[in-house]
Amino acid sequence: MAKGNLLYAQSGGVTAVINATASAVIQAARRHKVKVLAARNGILGALREELIDTSKESIGAIRALAHTPGGAFGSCRYKLKTLETDRAQYQRLIDVLRAHDVRWFLYNGGNDSADTAYKLSQLAAEFGYPLACIGVPKTVDNDLAVTDCCPGFPSAAKYTAVSVREAALDVAAMADTSTKVFVYEAMGRHAGWLAAASGMAGNGPDDAPQIILFPERTFDETAFLAKVKATVARVGWCVVVASEGVRDASGHFLSEGGTVDAFGHVQLGGVAPHLAEIVKNRLGMKVHWTVPGDRSRTRNGGRRSRR
Amino acid sequence: MAKGNLLYAQSGGVTAVINATASAVIQAARRHKVKVLAARNGILGALREELIDTSKESIGAIRALAHTPGGAFGSCRYKLKTLETDRAQYQRLIDVLRAHDVRWFLYNGGNDSADTAYKLSQLAAEFGYPLACIGVPKTVDNDLAVTDCCPGFPSAAKYTAVSVREAALDVAAMADTSTKVFVYEAMGRHAGWLAAASGMAGNGPDDAPQIILFPERTFDETAFLAKVKATVARVGWCVVVASEGVRDASGHFLSEGGTVDAFGHVQLGGVAPHLAEIVKNRLGMKVHWTVPGDRSRTRNGGRRSRR
Repeated sequence: MAKGNLLYAQSGGVTAVINATASAVIQAARRHKVKVLAARNGILGALREELIDTSKESIGAIRALAHTPGGAFGSCRYKLKTLETDRAQYQRLIDVLRAHDVRWFLYNGGNDSADTAYKLSQLAAEFGYPLACIGVPKTVDNDLAVTDCCPGFPSAAKYTAVSVREAALDVAAMADTSTKVFVYEAMGRHAGWLAAASGMAGNGPDDAPQIILFPERTFDETAFLAKVKATVARVGWCVVVASEGVRDASGHFLSEGGTVDAFGHVQLGGVAPHLAEIVKNRLGMKVHWTVPGDRSRTRNGGRRSRR
Repeated sequence: MAKGNLLYAQSGGVTAVINATASAVIQAARRHKVKVLAARNGILGALREELIDTSKESIGAIRALAHTPGGAFGSCRYKLKTLETDRAQYQRLIDVLRAHDVRWFLYNGGNDSADTAYKLSQLAAEFGYPLACIGVPKTVDNDLAVTDCCPGFPSAAKYTAVSVREAALDVAAMADTSTKVFVYEAMGRHAGWLAAASGMAGNGPDDAPQIILFPERTFDETAFLAKVKATVARVGWCVVVASEGVRDASGHFLSEGGTVDAFGHVQLGGVAPHLAEIVKNRLGMKVHWTVPGDRSRTRNGGRRSRR
């Protein structure tokens, strides 16, 4: 065996492929004769010294992990603060890593997780403890620093495009007597990658989605309604994909807007129901809408990454 | 060619397999050398004399139809009334059928469509016009008269079970620091078949879904909350599947309840957000929820059958 072990931990919302990353890490480490410990429920497992010895699992089980949904070792929503305010916790991490002879720490998450890994590497260097810290990218939003394509994004992108295409076929089949406009809310509060991915659903201006709204572009209600109206007149129906992070000219999220009080979208935080209400009220068209897989009432980061 | 043609029409919300039924009807008719006309946008196409001659399509195209999403010829939400009140429209149908030498009328839909086919057969007999009328079953709810298993139900049932299982894996992975309870709203306003199908997701009392709420059973809030609490204590998390048609002791839909005014569920008509609010307020647990693929603001039958 090589000198020292590797600790792997998952962080934040699990994606469709986070277990594939875990499987790859473990298989690669085995080839180098390095034992992999996995933290239970993310960084909390490291702090609590709840570590799973993956060397006890068969190679078949580790290979199967690549095709297993969910987060196999458990993940968590738990953010360490700065070294100054949270030094005791970073110190605790170093103590646990040292106790288990961990020389490699792989943290599978987003920008925050990469930052945590960086801070831990700083503290380890300060203590003269040899530790390689690596942030392993994961996110459906595709918005990680210095990462061109995040594991988690392609599967969510494909899901988005296929869902929009299938929904459009249903809308087209029913538009004569039923729904004329369909609004699909895509994830990505600050990045339009998933909304943009819906563009793969169509091949021309008459194919769905005829309208895509990005968080990077200011929402123009007049232009939006004009395009919906023109599309329905030309095609017979219209599919709109809206990023959850679409903002108005004042910089506010549409989902936080207060112009349509009766609807209750403030509690729900959905841009799709907001746009549906506008279309229904201004254009008098029947509208259906959908929001991401689940919707947390708390809105504090609660959402389902698997789509 | 046999004496006379066959008219096929689709009705109501399209399912994942309605085009498979269309493909089978056309292929079977071809074997008997009967030409199939398809009405554009359901019964409206027959009333408007907008008929598609499927004999112009290749056998390859007809076979591919079986695997094509949406409703290939268009469907509609349009219900003929009784023979007495709507006699002119039934008369018009007979006229169109006669003009195109239609001797078989296959209407692909639910109980209403079967009833329309029956009424048309009565009127045809009255006029001495030889016409075989057949209601071809279609619905995800699986609640058609004298039909054991409706085309559309199995695919929706599988989708429900797989979705609940996948969501449960995500919830389990995050429950330590995030969502403890997940509420999945299943379609089926008057029939619990799809809610029941979610039971395929698990193999024992600790697997999701730990709770299934049916429209056929009166909702007992006290018992519900006690079971959620006990499940979270024992398993660490709890998945609830609720039929959209769950009712309280007074016979009202939970989704129409007025006890949680601030939430706005009256407009949204969702039983899942209603239950989520109860769990959050009474048990103080973090809850996520999801509703069927789209949600019409009008609630007048508007929903997406493909799931």
